[in-house]
Amino acid sequence: MPDEVLVSPAELFGDGVFETIHLRPSGPFLASAHVERLSRSAALLDLEPLPLDLTGLVSDGPESALRIIRTRRSQHVTVSPIPPDTLRERDAGVRVISAGLGFALGGKPPWSLWEAKILSYAPNFAARRWARERGADDLLWLSTEGYALESPTASLVWLAGSDLCTVPWAEAQILPGTTAAHLLSLAPSVGLRPAHRMITIDELRGADAIWLASALRGLASVTALDDAPRRPSPWTPILRDLLGY
Amino acid sequence: MPDEVLVSPAELFGDGVFETIHLRPSGPFLASAHVERLSRSAALLDLEPLPLDLTGLVSDGPESALRIIRTRRSQHVTVSPIPPDTLRERDAGVRVISAGLGFALGGKPPWSLWEAKILSYAPNFAARRWARERGADDLLWLSTEGYALESPTASLVWLAGSDLCTVPWAEAQILPGTTAAHLLSLAPSVGLRPAHRMITIDELRGADAIWLASALRGLASVTALDDAPRRPSPWTPILRDLLGY
Repeated sequence: MPDEVLVSPAELFGDGVFETIHLRPSGPFLASAHVERLSRSAALLDLEPLPLDLTGLVSDGPESALRIIRTRRSQHVTVSPIPPDTLRERDAGVRVISAGLGFALGGKPPWSLWEAKILSYAPNFAARRWARERGADDLLWLSTEGYALESPTASLVWLAGSDLCTVPWAEAQILPGTTAAHLLSLAPSVGLRPAHRMITIDELRGADAIWLASALRGLASVTALDDAPRRPSPWTPILRDLLGY
Repeated sequence: MPDEVLVSPAELFGDGVFETIHLRPSGPFLASAHVERLSRSAALLDLEPLPLDLTGLVSDGPESALRIIRTRRSQHVTVSPIPPDTLRERDAGVRVISAGLGFALGGKPPWSLWEAKILSYAPNFAARRWARERGADDLLWLSTEGYALESPTASLVWLAGSDLCTVPWAEAQILPGTTAAHLLSLAPSVGLRPAHRMITIDELRGADAIWLASALRGLASVTALDDAPRRPSPWTPILRDLLGY
Protein backbone atom coordinates (compact mmCIF):
# COMPACT_ATOMS: atom_id res chain seq x y z
CA MET A 1 0.00 0.00 0.00
CA PRO A 2 1.45 3.37 -0.97
CA ASP A 3 2.86 5.83 1.56
CA GLU A 4 2.70 8.48 -1.12
CA VAL A 5 0.65 8.83 -4.29
CA LEU A 6 1.27 10.74 -7.49
CA VAL A 7 -1.70 12.95 -8.30
CA SER A 8 -2.60 16.01 -10.31
CA PRO A 9 -2.74 19.22 -8.20
CA ALA A 10 -6.44 19.38 -9.19
CA GLU A 11 -6.97 16.29 -7.05
CA LEU A 12 -6.10 18.23 -3.88
CA PHE A 13 -9.46 20.06 -3.85
CA GLY A 14 -11.48 17.40 -2.01
CA ASP A 15 -13.65 16.76 -5.07
CA GLY A 16 -14.16 13.05 -4.50
CA VAL A 17 -15.46 10.42 -2.11
CA PHE A 18 -14.04 7.88 0.29
CA GLU A 19 -14.71 5.03 2.67
CA THR A 20 -12.94 3.98 5.84
CA ILE A 21 -13.24 0.27 6.60
CA HIS A 22 -12.19 -1.76 9.64
CA LEU A 23 -9.66 -4.25 8.29
CA ARG A 24 -9.54 -7.48 10.30
CA PRO A 25 -7.38 -10.61 10.01
CA SER A 26 -10.44 -12.10 8.31
CA GLY A 27 -10.67 -9.24 5.80
CA PRO A 28 -12.53 -5.93 5.48
CA PHE A 29 -15.49 -5.69 7.87
CA LEU A 30 -18.82 -4.85 6.19
CA ALA A 31 -17.00 -4.57 2.87
CA SER A 32 -20.04 -4.78 0.62
CA ALA A 33 -21.99 -2.13 2.56
CA HIS A 34 -19.01 0.23 2.39
CA VAL A 35 -18.41 -0.40 -1.31
CA GLU A 36 -22.10 0.18 -2.03
CA ARG A 37 -22.02 3.48 -0.15
CA LEU A 38 -18.89 4.47 -2.08
CA SER A 39 -20.75 3.83 -5.33
CA ARG A 40 -23.74 5.89 -4.20
CA SER A 41 -21.42 8.71 -3.07
CA ALA A 42 -19.55 8.64 -6.38
CA ALA A 43 -22.79 8.80 -8.37
CA LEU A 44 -23.88 11.89 -6.42
CA LEU A 45 -20.66 13.59 -7.56
CA ASP A 46 -21.05 12.40 -11.17
CA LEU A 47 -17.93 10.24 -10.82
CA GLU A 48 -17.56 7.33 -13.23
CA PRO A 49 -17.31 3.94 -11.46
CA LEU A 50 -13.76 2.53 -11.35
CA PRO A 51 -12.97 -1.16 -10.83
CA LEU A 52 -12.23 -1.99 -7.19
CA ASP A 53 -10.96 -5.31 -5.89
CA LEU A 54 -10.51 -5.83 -2.16
CA THR A 55 -9.96 -9.59 -2.52
CA GLY A 56 -7.25 -10.97 -0.27
CA LEU A 57 -6.87 -7.81 1.82
CA VAL A 58 -6.37 -8.79 5.46
CA SER A 59 -4.89 -7.09 8.49
CA ASP A 60 -1.41 -8.24 9.46
CA GLY A 61 -1.98 -7.25 13.08
CA PRO A 62 -5.28 -7.57 15.00
CA GLU A 63 -6.80 -4.63 13.11
CA SER A 64 -5.96 -1.88 10.61
CA ALA A 65 -7.62 1.02 8.79
CA LEU A 66 -8.47 0.40 5.14
CA ARG A 67 -9.28 3.47 3.07
CA ILE A 68 -10.65 3.75 -0.43
CA ILE A 69 -10.04 7.24 -1.75
CA ARG A 70 -11.66 8.21 -5.05
CA THR A 71 -10.81 11.58 -6.56
CA ARG A 72 -12.22 12.82 -9.86
CA ARG A 73 -9.24 11.26 -11.66
CA SER A 74 -7.91 8.34 -9.67
CA GLN A 75 -8.58 5.81 -6.92
CA HIS A 76 -6.26 4.83 -4.09
CA VAL A 77 -6.53 2.00 -1.57
CA THR A 78 -4.45 2.41 1.60
CA VAL A 79 -3.92 0.36 4.73
CA SER A 80 -2.58 2.05 7.87
CA PRO A 81 -2.51 1.49 11.63
CA ILE A 82 -5.54 2.61 13.60
CA PRO A 83 -4.61 5.92 15.30
CA PRO A 84 -3.92 5.59 19.07
CA ASP A 85 -6.54 8.30 19.82
CA THR A 86 -9.17 6.22 18.05
CA LEU A 87 -8.33 3.10 20.08
CA ARG A 88 -8.31 5.13 23.29
CA GLU A 89 -11.73 6.63 22.51
CA ARG A 90 -13.14 3.21 21.68
CA ASP A 91 -12.04 1.88 25.08
CA ALA A 92 -12.42 4.91 27.35
CA GLY A 93 -15.39 6.49 25.62
CA VAL A 94 -15.82 10.05 24.39
CA ARG A 95 -16.78 13.35 25.97
CA VAL A 96 -19.14 15.08 23.54
CA ILE A 97 -20.41 18.63 23.24
CA SER A 98 -23.44 19.56 21.17
CA ALA A 99 -23.44 22.52 18.80
CA GLY A 100 -25.78 23.90 16.17
CA LEU A 101 -24.92 23.11 12.57
CA GLY A 102 -26.82 26.15 11.30
CA PHE A 103 -29.33 24.23 9.15
CA ALA A 104 -32.99 23.69 9.93
CA LEU A 105 -34.26 20.13 9.49
CA GLY A 106 -34.54 19.50 5.74
CA GLY A 107 -32.82 22.82 5.07
CA LYS A 108 -29.62 21.59 3.41
CA PRO A 109 -29.55 22.67 -0.24
CA PRO A 110 -29.99 20.09 -3.02
CA TRP A 111 -26.34 20.27 -4.16
CA SER A 112 -24.87 19.96 -0.65
CA LEU A 113 -23.88 16.29 -1.04
CA TRP A 114 -24.96 15.46 2.53
CA GLU A 115 -25.75 11.89 1.44
CA ALA A 116 -22.22 11.38 0.05
CA LYS A 117 -19.06 10.67 2.04
CA ILE A 118 -17.02 13.40 0.38
CA LEU A 119 -13.28 14.03 0.56
CA SER A 120 -13.98 17.70 1.42
CA TYR A 121 -13.33 17.08 5.09
CA ALA A 122 -11.82 20.37 6.30
CA PRO A 123 -15.07 21.42 8.05
CA ASN A 124 -15.26 18.02 9.79
CA PHE A 125 -11.66 18.28 11.00
CA ALA A 126 -12.29 21.89 12.08
CA ALA A 127 -15.40 20.87 14.02
CA ARG A 128 -13.39 18.26 15.94
CA ARG A 129 -10.58 20.76 16.66
CA TRP A 130 -13.24 23.18 17.92
CA ALA A 131 -14.64 20.51 20.25
CA ARG A 132 -11.17 19.62 21.52
CA GLU A 133 -10.33 23.25 22.27
CA ARG A 134 -13.38 23.11 24.57
CA GLY A 135 -12.17 20.06 26.44
CA ALA A 136 -14.30 17.49 24.61
CA ASP A 137 -13.30 14.62 22.32
CA ASP A 138 -16.02 15.09 19.76
CA LEU A 139 -19.02 17.13 18.79
CA LEU A 140 -22.66 16.34 18.15
CA TRP A 141 -24.29 18.44 15.42
CA LEU A 142 -27.77 19.80 16.03
CA SER A 143 -30.34 21.23 13.63
CA THR A 144 -31.51 24.77 14.40
CA GLU A 145 -34.61 23.20 16.03
CA GLY A 146 -32.36 21.25 18.42
CA TYR A 147 -32.56 17.80 16.82
CA ALA A 148 -29.44 15.68 17.32
CA LEU A 149 -28.06 14.70 13.90
CA GLU A 150 -24.60 13.12 13.78
CA SER A 151 -20.96 13.68 14.69
CA PRO A 152 -18.34 14.88 12.20
CA THR A 153 -17.07 11.31 11.73
CA ALA A 154 -19.65 9.08 13.45
CA SER A 155 -23.32 8.19 13.73
CA LEU A 156 -25.37 8.73 16.87
CA VAL A 157 -26.79 5.61 18.55
CA TRP A 158 -28.77 5.56 21.79
CA LEU A 159 -30.78 3.24 23.99
CA ALA A 160 -34.31 4.16 25.07
CA GLY A 161 -35.71 1.32 27.19
CA SER A 162 -35.26 -1.71 24.96
CA ASP A 163 -35.14 0.36 21.76
CA LEU A 164 -31.74 0.69 20.13
CA CYS A 165 -32.04 3.86 18.09
CA THR A 166 -30.29 5.87 15.45
CA VAL A 167 -31.29 8.95 13.45
CA PRO A 168 -33.24 8.46 10.17
CA TRP A 169 -30.68 9.66 7.67
CA ALA A 170 -32.96 10.88 4.88
CA GLU A 171 -35.20 12.93 7.18
CA ALA A 172 -32.17 14.33 9.03
CA GLN A 173 -30.12 14.83 5.81
CA ILE A 174 -27.12 12.99 7.22
CA LEU A 175 -24.72 10.39 5.86
CA PRO A 176 -26.17 6.86 6.23
CA GLY A 177 -24.03 5.16 8.88
CA THR A 178 -22.70 1.74 7.88
CA THR A 179 -21.64 0.60 11.36
CA ALA A 180 -24.82 1.95 12.99
CA ALA A 181 -27.06 0.26 10.39
CA HIS A 182 -25.29 -3.06 10.92
CA LEU A 183 -25.56 -2.75 14.71
CA LEU A 184 -29.29 -2.07 14.49
CA SER A 185 -29.75 -5.09 12.22
CA LEU A 186 -28.22 -7.25 14.98
CA ALA A 187 -30.22 -5.68 17.82
CA PRO A 188 -32.95 -8.37 17.92
CA SER A 189 -30.31 -11.06 18.61
CA VAL A 190 -29.72 -9.48 22.05
CA GLY A 191 -33.36 -8.67 22.76
CA LEU A 192 -33.37 -5.04 21.60
CA ARG A 193 -35.69 -3.42 19.06
CA PRO A 194 -34.06 -1.40 16.28
CA ALA A 195 -35.58 2.04 15.69
CA HIS A 196 -34.89 5.06 13.50
CA ARG A 197 -36.22 8.20 15.09
CA MET A 198 -35.59 11.92 15.48
CA ILE A 199 -34.56 13.04 18.96
CA THR A 200 -33.95 16.49 20.42
CA ILE A 201 -30.81 17.14 22.42
CA ASP A 202 -32.96 17.56 25.55
CA GLU A 203 -34.63 14.17 25.02
CA LEU A 204 -31.23 12.62 24.29
CA ARG A 205 -29.94 13.68 27.72
CA GLY A 206 -32.53 11.32 29.20
CA ALA A 207 -31.47 8.31 27.09
CA ASP A 208 -30.34 5.14 28.91
CA ALA A 209 -27.07 5.11 26.99
CA ILE A 210 -25.48 7.04 24.12
CA TRP A 211 -22.77 5.90 21.69
CA LEU A 212 -20.96 7.13 18.60
CA ALA A 213 -20.67 4.45 15.91
CA SER A 214 -18.04 4.48 13.17
CA ALA A 215 -15.81 2.03 11.33
CA LEU A 216 -12.61 2.52 13.33
CA ARG A 217 -13.86 3.48 16.79
CA GLY A 218 -16.54 0.84 16.44
CA LEU A 219 -18.90 1.80 19.24
CA ALA A 220 -17.59 4.51 21.58
CA SER A 221 -19.58 5.18 24.71
CA VAL A 222 -20.50 8.83 25.36
CA THR A 223 -19.15 9.39 28.88
CA ALA A 224 -20.17 13.05 29.08
CA LEU A 225 -22.62 15.16 27.09
CA ASP A 226 -22.20 18.94 27.40
CA ASP A 227 -20.21 18.52 30.63
CA ALA A 228 -22.81 16.26 32.27
CA PRO A 229 -21.10 12.91 33.08
CA ARG A 230 -23.01 9.79 32.10
CA ARG A 231 -23.01 6.41 33.82
CA PRO A 232 -21.40 3.45 31.99
CA SER A 233 -23.99 1.19 30.38
CA PRO A 234 -23.95 -2.61 30.79
CA TRP A 235 -24.92 -2.70 27.11
CA THR A 236 -21.61 -1.26 25.90
CA PRO A 237 -19.58 -4.52 26.12
CA ILE A 238 -22.53 -6.55 24.77
CA LEU A 239 -22.95 -4.34 21.69
CA ARG A 240 -19.20 -4.02 21.06
CA ASP A 241 -18.96 -7.79 21.20
CA LEU A 242 -21.85 -8.05 18.76
CA LEU A 243 -19.91 -5.85 16.31
CA GLY A 244 -16.67 -7.72 16.95
CA TYR A 245 -14.67 -4.75 18.27
CA MET B 1 5.56 23.84 -12.55
CA PRO B 2 4.55 20.25 -11.79
CA ASP B 3 1.89 18.41 -13.77
CA GLU B 4 1.77 15.89 -10.96
CA VAL B 5 2.69 16.05 -7.29
CA LEU B 6 3.71 13.37 -4.83
CA VAL B 7 1.55 13.58 -1.70
CA SER B 8 0.44 11.47 1.22
CA PRO B 9 -3.06 9.99 0.74
CA ALA B 10 -4.04 12.03 3.84
CA GLU B 11 -3.57 15.15 1.72
CA LEU B 12 -6.49 14.18 -0.52
CA PHE B 13 -9.10 15.15 2.12
CA GLY B 14 -9.29 18.86 1.27
CA ASP B 15 -7.84 19.83 4.66
CA GLY B 16 -5.95 22.89 3.47
CA VAL B 17 -6.24 26.27 1.80
CA PHE B 18 -5.49 27.80 -1.58
CA GLU B 19 -5.37 30.91 -3.70
CA THR B 20 -5.95 31.41 -7.41
CA ILE B 21 -4.08 34.38 -8.87
CA HIS B 22 -4.22 36.00 -12.30
CA LEU B 23 -0.69 35.64 -13.67
CA ARG B 24 0.23 38.37 -16.13
CA PRO B 25 3.36 38.99 -18.22
CA SER B 26 4.20 41.55 -15.51
CA GLY B 27 3.78 38.98 -12.71
CA PRO B 28 1.02 37.83 -10.33
CA PHE B 29 -1.85 40.36 -10.11
CA LEU B 30 -2.70 41.47 -6.54
CA ALA B 31 -0.05 39.08 -5.23
CA SER B 32 0.28 40.57 -1.75
CA ALA B 33 -3.49 40.62 -1.14
CA HIS B 34 -3.75 36.97 -2.21
CA VAL B 35 -0.75 35.90 -0.11
CA GLU B 36 -2.18 37.73 2.92
CA ARG B 37 -5.52 35.97 2.48
CA LEU B 38 -3.70 32.63 2.17
CA SER B 39 -1.98 33.34 5.50
CA ARG B 40 -5.27 34.24 7.19
CA SER B 41 -6.91 31.12 5.73
CA ALA B 42 -4.02 28.94 6.91
CA ALA B 43 -4.18 30.38 10.43
CA LEU B 44 -7.90 29.55 10.63
CA LEU B 45 -7.01 25.91 9.91
CA ASP B 46 -4.12 25.90 12.40
CA LEU B 47 -1.62 25.42 9.56
CA GLU B 48 1.98 26.45 10.18
CA PRO B 49 3.20 29.14 7.76
CA LEU B 50 5.51 27.81 5.02
CA PRO B 51 7.94 29.97 3.05
CA LEU B 52 6.51 31.14 -0.28
CA ASP B 53 8.41 32.97 -2.98
CA LEU B 54 6.58 34.13 -6.10
CA THR B 55 9.52 36.27 -7.30
CA GLY B 56 10.13 36.09 -11.04
CA LEU B 57 6.86 34.28 -11.83
CA VAL B 58 5.43 35.73 -15.05
CA SER B 59 2.99 34.49 -17.66
CA ASP B 60 4.55 33.26 -20.89
CA GLY B 61 1.40 34.05 -22.85
CA PRO B 62 -0.94 37.02 -22.22
CA GLU B 63 -2.31 35.44 -19.05
CA SER B 64 -2.24 32.24 -16.96
CA ALA B 65 -3.69 30.81 -13.76
CA LEU B 66 -1.33 30.70 -10.78
CA ARG B 67 -2.38 28.50 -7.88
CA ILE B 68 -0.92 28.18 -4.41
CA ILE B 69 -2.16 24.97 -2.83
CA ARG B 70 -1.38 24.40 0.85
CA THR B 71 -2.31 21.06 2.39
CA ARG B 72 -1.62 20.15 6.01
CA ARG B 73 1.76 18.72 4.98
CA SER B 74 2.97 20.46 1.84
CA GLN B 75 2.63 23.44 -0.46
CA HIS B 76 2.43 23.44 -4.25
CA VAL B 77 2.63 26.30 -6.72
CA THR B 78 1.20 25.59 -10.17
CA VAL B 79 0.80 27.59 -13.37
CA SER B 80 -1.75 26.49 -15.96
CA PRO B 81 -3.71 27.94 -18.87
CA ILE B 82 -6.93 29.76 -18.04
CA PRO B 83 -9.80 27.39 -18.89
CA PRO B 84 -11.68 28.28 -22.11
CA ASP B 85 -15.01 28.39 -20.20
CA THR B 86 -13.58 31.04 -17.88
CA LEU B 87 -12.46 33.22 -20.79
CA ARG B 88 -15.82 32.77 -22.50
CA GLU B 89 -17.70 33.77 -19.34
CA ARG B 90 -15.49 36.81 -18.88
CA ASP B 91 -16.30 38.01 -22.40
CA ALA B 92 -19.88 36.86 -22.89
CA GLY B 93 -21.06 37.22 -19.30
CA VAL B 94 -22.81 34.68 -17.08
CA ARG B 95 -26.38 33.51 -16.64
CA VAL B 96 -26.95 33.17 -12.90
CA ILE B 97 -29.63 31.48 -10.84
CA SER B 98 -30.17 32.23 -7.16
CA ALA B 99 -30.64 29.48 -4.59
CA GLY B 100 -30.85 29.31 -0.81
CA LEU B 101 -27.71 28.19 0.99
CA GLY B 102 -29.69 27.00 4.01
CA PHE B 103 -28.09 29.33 6.56
CA ALA B 104 -29.70 32.37 8.15
CA LEU B 105 -27.59 35.53 8.22
CA GLY B 106 -24.91 35.03 10.88
CA GLY B 107 -25.99 31.41 11.26
CA LYS B 108 -22.84 29.63 10.07
CA PRO B 109 -21.23 27.76 12.95
CA PRO B 110 -17.95 29.00 14.46
CA TRP B 111 -15.89 26.13 13.03
CA SER B 112 -17.29 26.38 9.51
CA LEU B 113 -14.21 28.15 8.07
CA TRP B 114 -16.35 30.49 5.95
CA GLU B 115 -13.61 33.13 6.16
CA ALA B 116 -10.96 30.73 4.79
CA LYS B 117 -10.47 29.72 1.17
CA ILE B 118 -10.40 26.00 1.86
CA LEU B 119 -9.43 23.15 -0.43
CA SER B 120 -12.68 21.35 0.48
CA TYR B 121 -14.32 22.45 -2.74
CA ALA B 122 -16.64 19.52 -3.59
CA PRO B 123 -19.76 21.48 -2.49
CA ASN B 124 -18.68 24.46 -4.61
CA PHE B 125 -18.16 22.26 -7.67
CA ALA B 126 -21.48 20.53 -6.98
CA ALA B 127 -23.29 23.87 -6.73
CA ARG B 128 -21.96 24.90 -10.15
CA ARG B 129 -22.93 21.53 -11.68
CA TRP B 130 -26.41 21.99 -10.21
CA ALA B 131 -26.67 25.47 -11.79
CA ARG B 132 -25.47 24.15 -15.15
CA GLU B 133 -28.00 21.33 -15.12
CA ARG B 134 -30.58 24.12 -14.90
CA GLY B 135 -29.25 25.99 -17.92
CA ALA B 136 -27.27 28.61 -16.01
CA ASP B 137 -23.51 29.24 -15.85
CA ASP B 138 -23.31 29.95 -12.16
CA LEU B 139 -25.27 30.24 -8.97
CA LEU B 140 -25.83 33.02 -6.45
CA TRP B 141 -26.16 31.83 -2.86
CA LEU B 142 -28.85 33.40 -0.68
CA SER B 143 -29.33 33.39 3.08
CA THR B 144 -32.64 31.97 4.32
CA GLU B 145 -33.87 35.59 4.63
CA GLY B 146 -33.18 36.14 0.93
CA TYR B 147 -29.98 38.18 1.19
CA ALA B 148 -27.63 37.72 -1.77
CA LEU B 149 -24.27 36.46 -0.49
CA GLU B 150 -21.73 35.21 -3.03
CA SER B 151 -21.19 32.69 -5.81
CA PRO B 152 -19.36 29.38 -5.33
CA THR B 153 -16.18 30.86 -6.85
CA ALA B 154 -16.83 34.60 -7.12
CA SER B 155 -17.90 37.75 -5.26
CA LEU B 156 -21.08 39.65 -6.07
CA VAL B 157 -20.63 43.26 -7.29
CA TRP B 158 -23.44 45.58 -8.40
CA LEU B 159 -24.10 49.16 -9.39
CA ALA B 160 -26.81 51.20 -7.66
CA GLY B 161 -26.84 54.70 -9.13
CA SER B 162 -23.24 55.81 -8.71
CA ASP B 163 -22.54 53.37 -5.87
CA LEU B 164 -20.37 50.39 -6.76
CA CYS B 165 -21.30 47.81 -4.16
CA THR B 166 -20.27 44.47 -2.78
CA VAL B 167 -21.47 42.41 0.19
CA PRO B 168 -19.86 43.07 3.62
CA TRP B 169 -18.05 39.80 4.15
CA ALA B 170 -18.01 39.65 7.95
CA GLU B 171 -21.74 40.40 8.33
CA ALA B 172 -22.59 37.98 5.50
CA GLN B 173 -20.08 35.33 6.66
CA ILE B 174 -18.52 35.02 3.21
CA LEU B 175 -14.97 34.82 1.90
CA PRO B 176 -13.45 38.30 1.53
CA GLY B 177 -13.12 38.85 -2.25
CA THR B 178 -9.69 40.01 -3.37
CA THR B 179 -10.69 41.15 -6.87
CA ALA B 180 -13.89 42.81 -5.63
CA ALA B 181 -12.05 44.67 -2.85
CA HIS B 182 -9.47 45.94 -5.32
CA LEU B 183 -12.17 47.04 -7.78
CA LEU B 184 -13.98 49.00 -5.08
CA SER B 185 -10.74 50.69 -4.04
CA LEU B 186 -10.41 51.99 -7.62
CA ALA B 187 -14.06 53.08 -7.94
CA PRO B 188 -13.45 56.77 -7.09
CA SER B 189 -11.04 57.06 -10.04
CA VAL B 190 -14.00 56.62 -12.40
CA GLY B 191 -16.46 58.69 -10.38
CA LEU B 192 -18.15 55.85 -8.48
CA ARG B 193 -18.56 55.52 -4.70
CA PRO B 194 -17.49 52.20 -3.15
CA ALA B 195 -20.03 50.67 -0.75
CA HIS B 196 -20.37 47.49 1.27
CA ARG B 197 -24.01 46.70 1.90
CA MET B 198 -26.45 43.84 2.32
CA ILE B 199 -28.96 43.41 -0.49
CA THR B 200 -31.92 41.09 -0.91
CA ILE B 201 -32.35 39.15 -4.13
CA ASP B 202 -35.47 41.23 -4.90
CA GLU B 203 -33.56 44.50 -4.47
CA LEU B 204 -30.69 43.09 -6.55
CA ARG B 205 -33.03 42.54 -9.50
CA GLY B 206 -33.44 46.33 -9.63
CA ALA B 207 -29.68 47.06 -9.68
CA ASP B 208 -28.28 49.04 -12.63
CA ALA B 209 -25.72 46.32 -13.32
CA ILE B 210 -24.54 43.07 -11.70
CA TRP B 211 -21.18 41.33 -12.00
CA LEU B 212 -19.31 38.35 -10.57
CA ALA B 213 -15.73 39.20 -9.61
CA SER B 214 -12.95 36.64 -9.29
CA ALA B 215 -9.27 36.29 -10.10
CA LEU B 216 -9.55 34.45 -13.41
CA ARG B 217 -12.87 35.64 -14.83
CA GLY B 218 -11.99 39.12 -13.65
CA LEU B 219 -15.35 40.85 -13.90
CA ALA B 220 -18.08 38.83 -15.60
CA SER B 221 -21.30 40.63 -16.39
CA VAL B 222 -24.50 38.92 -15.20
CA THR B 223 -26.54 38.69 -18.40
CA ALA B 224 -29.52 36.90 -16.82
CA LEU B 225 -30.65 36.48 -13.24
CA ASP B 226 -33.17 33.68 -12.62
CA ASP B 227 -34.13 33.63 -16.31
CA ALA B 228 -34.71 37.40 -16.51
CA PRO B 229 -32.32 38.80 -19.15
CA ARG B 230 -30.40 41.94 -18.19
CA ARG B 231 -29.24 44.79 -20.43
CA PRO B 232 -25.49 45.21 -21.00
CA SER B 233 -24.02 47.99 -18.87
CA PRO B 234 -21.73 50.69 -20.30
CA TRP B 235 -19.74 50.29 -17.08
CA THR B 236 -18.61 46.77 -17.88
CA PRO B 237 -15.75 47.71 -20.26
CA ILE B 238 -14.75 50.65 -18.04
CA LEU B 239 -14.45 48.51 -14.91
CA ARG B 240 -12.76 45.61 -16.73
CA ASP B 241 -10.23 48.08 -18.10
CA LEU B 242 -9.70 49.43 -14.60
CA LEU B 243 -8.84 45.93 -13.42
CA GLY B 244 -6.67 45.24 -16.46
CA TYR B 245 -8.66 42.28 -17.82
